[in-house]
Amino acid sequence: MSKDIHKKKHLSSFQLIILGFASVILLGAIILMLPVSSAEGVITPFNQTLFTSTSAVCVTGLAVLDTGSYWSVFGQVVILLLIQIGGLGVVTVAVSVFMLSGRKISLMQRSTMQNAISAHKVGGIVRLTKFILKGTLFIEMAGALALLPVFYHDFGRKGIWMAVFHSISAFCNAGFDILGTPANPFPSITAYAGNPIVNVVIMFLIIAGGIGFLTWEDICINKTHFRKYHMQSKIILVTTALLIVLPAVFFFFSDFTHLSVGKRLLASAFQAVTPRTAGFNTMDISKMTEVSKAMIIILMLVGGSPSSTAGGMKTTTFAVLILNAFATFRSQENVETFGRRIEWSVIKNASTIAMMYCMLFLCGGITISVYEGLPLLECLYEAASAVGTVGLTLGITPKLHIVSQFILIILMYLGRVGGLTLIYAVLSKKKKGNARLPLEKLTVG
Amino acid sequence: MSKDIHKKKHLSSFQLIILGFASVILLGAIILMLPVSSAEGVITPFNQTLFTSTSAVCVTGLAVLDTGSYWSVFGQVVILLLIQIGGLGVVTVAVSVFMLSGRKISLMQRSTMQNAISAHKVGGIVRLTKFILKGTLFIEMAGALALLPVFYHDFGRKGIWMAVFHSISAFCNAGFDILGTPANPFPSITAYAGNPIVNVVIMFLIIAGGIGFLTWEDICINKTHFRKYHMQSKIILVTTALLIVLPAVFFFFSDFTHLSVGKRLLASAFQAVTPRTAGFNTMDISKMTEVSKAMIIILMLVGGSPSSTAGGMKTTTFAVLILNAFATFRSQENVETFGRRIEWSVIKNASTIAMMYCMLFLCGGITISVYEGLPLLECLYEAASAVGTVGLTLGITPKLHIVSQFILIILMYLGRVGGLTLIYAVLSKKKKGNARLPLEKLTVG
Ligand SMILES: [K+]
Ligand SMILES: [K+]
Repeated sequence: MSKDIHKKKHLSSFQLIILGFASVILLGAIILMLPVSSAEGVITPFNQTLFTSTSAVCVTGLAVLDTGSYWSVFGQVVILLLIQIGGLGVVTVAVSVFMLSGRKISLMQRSTMQNAISAHKVGGIVRLTKFILKGTLFIEMAGALALLPVFYHDFGRKGIWMAVFHSISAFCNAGFDILGTPANPFPSITAYAGNPIVNVVIMFLIIAGGIGFLTWEDICINKTHFRKYHMQSKIILVTTALLIVLPAVFFFFSDFTHLSVGKRLLASAFQAVTPRTAGFNTMDISKMTEVSKAMIIILMLVGGSPSSTAGGMKTTTFAVLILNAFATFRSQENVETFGRRIEWSVIKNASTIAMMYCMLFLCGGITISVYEGLPLLECLYEAASAVGTVGLTLGITPKLHIVSQFILIILMYLGRVGGLTLIYAVLSKKKKGNARLPLEKLTVG
Repeated sequence: MSKDIHKKKHLSSFQLIILGFASVILLGAIILMLPVSSAEGVITPFNQTLFTSTSAVCVTGLAVLDTGSYWSVFGQVVILLLIQIGGLGVVTVAVSVFMLSGRKISLMQRSTMQNAISAHKVGGIVRLTKFILKGTLFIEMAGALALLPVFYHDFGRKGIWMAVFHSISAFCNAGFDILGTPANPFPSITAYAGNPIVNVVIMFLIIAGGIGFLTWEDICINKTHFRKYHMQSKIILVTTALLIVLPAVFFFFSDFTHLSVGKRLLASAFQAVTPRTAGFNTMDISKMTEVSKAMIIILMLVGGSPSSTAGGMKTTTFAVLILNAFATFRSQENVETFGRRIEWSVIKNASTIAMMYCMLFLCGGITISVYEGLPLLECLYEAASAVGTVGLTLGITPKLHIVSQFILIILMYLGRVGGLTLIYAVLSKKKKGNARLPLEKLTVG
């Protein structure tokens, strides 16, 4: 009986998460329609504001309208708020508002919060929420201050707003920029490709946001004692490091050959950091080699880490599948890493999630390619960018028809909410399954 | 103690399988070097004969030299023998030779045979080997007889050889053809695109060879009582049917628009049957749309069924991953299908194999693209064709440098031998793993 109640709560919390995201997206789309939101004071069509709002709340960064030149400052503030809510997660924001207004957090809210950020235990949710809020505020302010000199030098007082916007956008892995002008829309931060301060600060903010709040908790508690970290934090840190260093080395040798060594290093590092859900770019990514584009597609699908601002199938999912392959090849019964065993249900889920992201990516990309008659690689790139909530683009998004844009909206939403959350929310109850069914041999491979 | 001995035998049998394949490939390459093998009576370079021999033994069908015009009839007979040995499997052939020479089959040979064809039990291996031999002979003869009228009409007495060659090549899913001339090399069977008899017979032979000997055993024993089949046979038949019908429908609407409805149906069906390891083509596949090419790549990676003449990650692997995803989404504890449970080690292996084939495919395709400076899609197509032992080509294989051809040789070998066989063979002993390691929570997706 008490178990049933728990189950019901458990499910409702997933439903809360997806409904919360959907409500914020819809609200954002309606506000962005108002004339005050656009620079020219016109009403923006709903399909375009829905795309923009989804992209902001799902911290993707794909845009059908140039953020810097189309929207008014009010519109940009709305987008930045949506990014901040999406980055922290709708539930974290809701719990924070409750806490700050001095109310008591119910058990239901605690359990929802736990599911939303995949916390290890219900206890300490209030403490964790405070930690997330303080940490986010601190890092975003530090980032804005570090960016301020550059932007103030280039834009005067408007540079303050620029610094704040890009710091938050980078930490939330949103990839939105407001550097575009009517003459030069969608520039991302290519204008600062050679600026070491902007490059390093933005890269740090992206990585800081992408490794997840629980990893930060581990870092703050255990400092340099790597051995004491949770297995999850260890996996996240090692996988993240590898998925930055290896592509950076590859890009250094295959791309950006016209740059000096120093700038080339910077460009390679930045373009290796950005595909796993950040979405900024300092170089013209449409000029990268085909193979580099394919590698970026793979990185986009892998995405960031759990309980972070990131989307994609997640670094842990990717790591689990690799570890599973190693375990099989070494004839090990269990998948083991860092002195811990990984439960088999985790491998089952990882396999499901990888399958789901690949299907969404392939079906989305192929449908857009057939419908628009555009080259397949470009459409797959855009689909991976949406489902990984990355925001990198080869430039086709603003030119797509409504149907294709709607496909991207769905991919962004599913990519951010996470497949399992969605499915658990839709399901009414957990099926036990008939454990009495006999096993039967099956040959694979 | 007795368990250790069993383990040792188990491993040795895997080693036998990979060494057997390698020896036959090497022997074939040496014989093909002889002047008598080429039409012009010249010595063929080793790298080209190694490629040809690997392609034949691994029943792939990729060719650097046109089979119809470059090789003498002797050379073609050698290639056909290699195809037949590769299609049946080196071990099946060895056991057959032993049996036919009247010797007794040792337990060691039985267990090797069992591993080679993934039979359900050691008992009945002799009976199964006989079944495989008789079945192969019967189907290949029937196929040759059905093709004979067409080829005899077009080529006179040479048509007999043509009918035999193409029947065996189709049943073994090899995809080699001898219809090329110096003026028109590498034609596959495009000349018979509109011929219903050739189309239907070849399609039947491909499917018959691709569903595997154990499925045929089930069909012969249980006839139309589908319910009595092994779970494996049911999965193979359903997956095979879906992977033929769905792509056929897609191709019908996206390609071959210049043909009449009847020929278009035939072309769509044939091009849907062929990518899962057969490798024949009736249409110019390089003229298909980009999306169709991508779908063919996916089909090539999936490949045929276990214990068949086919390569690739196998239909069962693909089905298990899909079933696992469904089970996760439906919150089922176990992966179930057709009233049976699938063991979790099977899912673990399926995930490993899918990972391995994707890695081989991506690394192979990307390396060739970078090394040769050719478009990525074409190189990925060729890599998928090699690792799935398919043999479809966009025409770049004969033009590749030795390094790239060697990469394809390795992909063909690994794709045919199967990753697990290879790894088990290399390993000296099974590790138990430390089951006492504590479990730790990990979030994926
Ligand atoms: K993003
Ligand atoms: K083949």
